[in-house]
Amino acid sequence: MPETTLFEGLSAFPLTPTDADGRLMPDLMRVFLTRIRDAGADSIGLLGSTGGYAYLTRAEREHAVRVAVACVGGTIPIVVGAGALRTDEAQALARDAKAAGADGLLLAPMSYAPLTDEEVFRHFEAVAQAADLPLCVYNNPTTTKFTFSPALLARLADLPNVVAAKMPFPVDGGVEAELATLRAALPDGFAIGYSGDFGAATALLAGADAWYSVVGGLLPGPALALTRAARAGDRETTARLAEAFAPLFGLFRAHGGFRVMYAMADLLGLARLEPPRPVLPLSEGVRAEVEAALARIPSA
Amino acid sequence: MPETTLFEGLSAFPLTPTDADGRLMPDLMRVFLTRIRDAGADSIGLLGSTGGYAYLTRAEREHAVRVAVACVGGTIPIVVGAGALRTDEAQALARDAKAAGADGLLLAPMSYAPLTDEEVFRHFEAVAQAADLPLCVYNNPTTTKFTFSPALLARLADLPNVVAAKMPFPVDGGVEAELATLRAALPDGFAIGYSGDFGAATALLAGADAWYSVVGGLLPGPALALTRAARAGDRETTARLAEAFAPLFGLFRAHGGFRVMYAMADLLGLARLEPPRPVLPLSEGVRAEVEAALARIPSA
Repeated sequence: MPETTLFEGLSAFPLTPTDADGRLMPDLMRVFLTRIRDAGADSIGLLGSTGGYAYLTRAEREHAVRVAVACVGGTIPIVVGAGALRTDEAQALARDAKAAGADGLLLAPMSYAPLTDEEVFRHFEAVAQAADLPLCVYNNPTTTKFTFSPALLARLADLPNVVAAKMPFPVDGGVEAELATLRAALPDGFAIGYSGDFGAATALLAGADAWYSVVGGLLPGPALALTRAARAGDRETTARLAEAFAPLFGLFRAHGGFRVMYAMADLLGLARLEPPRPVLPLSEGVRAEVEAALARIPSA
Repeated sequence: MPETTLFEGLSAFPLTPTDADGRLMPDLMRVFLTRIRDAGADSIGLLGSTGGYAYLTRAEREHAVRVAVACVGGTIPIVVGAGALRTDEAQALARDAKAAGADGLLLAPMSYAPLTDEEVFRHFEAVAQAADLPLCVYNNPTTTKFTFSPALLARLADLPNVVAAKMPFPVDGGVEAELATLRAALPDGFAIGYSGDFGAATALLAGADAWYSVVGGLLPGPALALTRAARAGDRETTARLAEAFAPLFGLFRAHGGFRVMYAMADLLGLARLEPPRPVLPLSEGVRAEVEAALARIPSA
C-alpha cells in the first residue's frame, strides 16, 4: 500500500452537530470526531457537504475547527471546507481554518450566478494564496452547479498548494477511463479521490487515491475496512463489504446522504439531531428503511 | 389594460451597488432607483438575482431596503428578495424587509443540498408567515437548482400571502401552453410573470401578467415601452422594440445578465462598479459588444 498522504485513503466526513439556531454542539462534535480517529481513518473532512458548511456562519465554522483541533488535532489530519459564495469570505474562512490549526483545505466553488472557468480559477487562486495549506479541489456539481473539466483541474494543479481533487463518481460509471484521463492531465503526485459512496469500491479498485466518504463520518470502521480491502486489491472482500453497504448507499442516492446521516446518528444511539431547515428529517417510513439497511452492515 | 397590481407590468431589477467589501453604496443605489421610478415602471425588484442578494450580508440587505424606501417608497412599489439558504435566515430577512417598509417579497429557494418539494413548501410557509406581506414565488432554476411544478405552485398559492410567481422563460419556448397549464392549476387572481429578458415580448403577448426585467434595472424607459406595447397587444411595436433589444439580450444569455449589467452601468455613464468576486467583469471585447448592442436600443 502506498504511503498515506493527506489526501489518500479514507477521508471521513462527520455531520456538524448544531442546535435549531445553527449553533455548534461541541460535545457531540467530539463524539463524532473521536469515533473517526479511534477507527483509524486517514483524515477527517470537516465542514464538507455532510458537515453542512453552507448552512453555518463563519463564527460557527471557526468554532468547529477549534473544537476539532483541540479534540483530535495531531492524531489524525483535519481537512476543512472553506467554501463560500464570495471570494473574500472563502479567503477569510481559509485563514480562520489555518489559524485554528487545520491541516488542509477543501474548496468547493459554491455559486449563485453560474460561474465561468476563469472565475473559478481566480477564486481558487485567491483562496489558495490566502492560507498556506494543502488544498483539495472539491468537485461536487450536485451542490455547486459547477463541473471541473480536466483542463481546468490541470490549470489549478499548477497553483501553489493545490494538490488534490475530490471527484464525483461518474454517473455513467466510467471511472477507470476518467482516472486515466485525469492522470494524464495532472502532475505526478496530484491526488485524485472520489466521493459518491455508492461508487467508492469501484473507484478505489480502479486506483483512486482516496474515498471522501459520507458514511465514514458515522461508520468509520466498516468504511475503513472497505477502503483497505479495495486499496490492497482484495476484490472478494471489497465486493462483500460493498454488498453490505449497498442498501444504505441506495438510500443515500434516493434521499441524499445528508438527510440519511441525521437518521443514522439517532439510530446508532449517538445523537438526536435535525438537519438545518429547510432540509427536513426523513419520514418514519424511510427511517425504518435506514434501520434495516444498517442491520446489513457488519459492526455498524 | 388591466389595473396594475403589485405583481403586474414591468418589475425592474436594479443592481445593488457595493464596494469591493460588499458594502452598500447608497448614493448610487438612489441613482438607480430614481431612474426606475421616474420612468414609470410598475415596481422595483430590489435584491433580486440582478441585485446580487446572495452575495450580501443581512445587514447590507436591510440597509438597501431602508435606502430604497427612504428614496422612492410610496411612489413605486418595492418588492424585496428574501432568499437565503437557511429558513430562519430567510424569515429574518423577510421581517427586516417588512420593518423597513417593503411592499412585497420575492422568495427564491436557494439551495445547497438539493431540496424536495415538501422542503420548499415548508420553507415558503415559514417565510410567508414570518412577514405579513404579499409574496412572489421566485422560480429561477439557473441559480437555485430547484424547479417548481404546477402542482407545487398550486399548493403554495393556497398559503396566505403567496399571490404571484415569477417563472423562467421556458427553454423550449412553449410559453402559451405553460401559461394555460398554470392558469388552470392556480387560483384566479394569482399573478404569473416571467423573467428571461429575451422571452419577455413573447411572454407578455401570450398574456403573462408581468415582466421581471433585468434590463429594466438600467433601461427602464425602453423596457416599459416594450411592456406597454405587448400588454396592449400591439404586436408591431412590440416586435420592433424586441428586435432592438435582441443583441443585448443575446449577450445576457451568453454572458449572464448580471455581468452585462455591470458593464452597462459604466457604459451608460452611471457608475463604475464591479460584480462581487468570484464573478468577474466582462472582457474588453465583450464590453465593446455590449456598447454596440446598447446603440441599437432607442433612448438607451
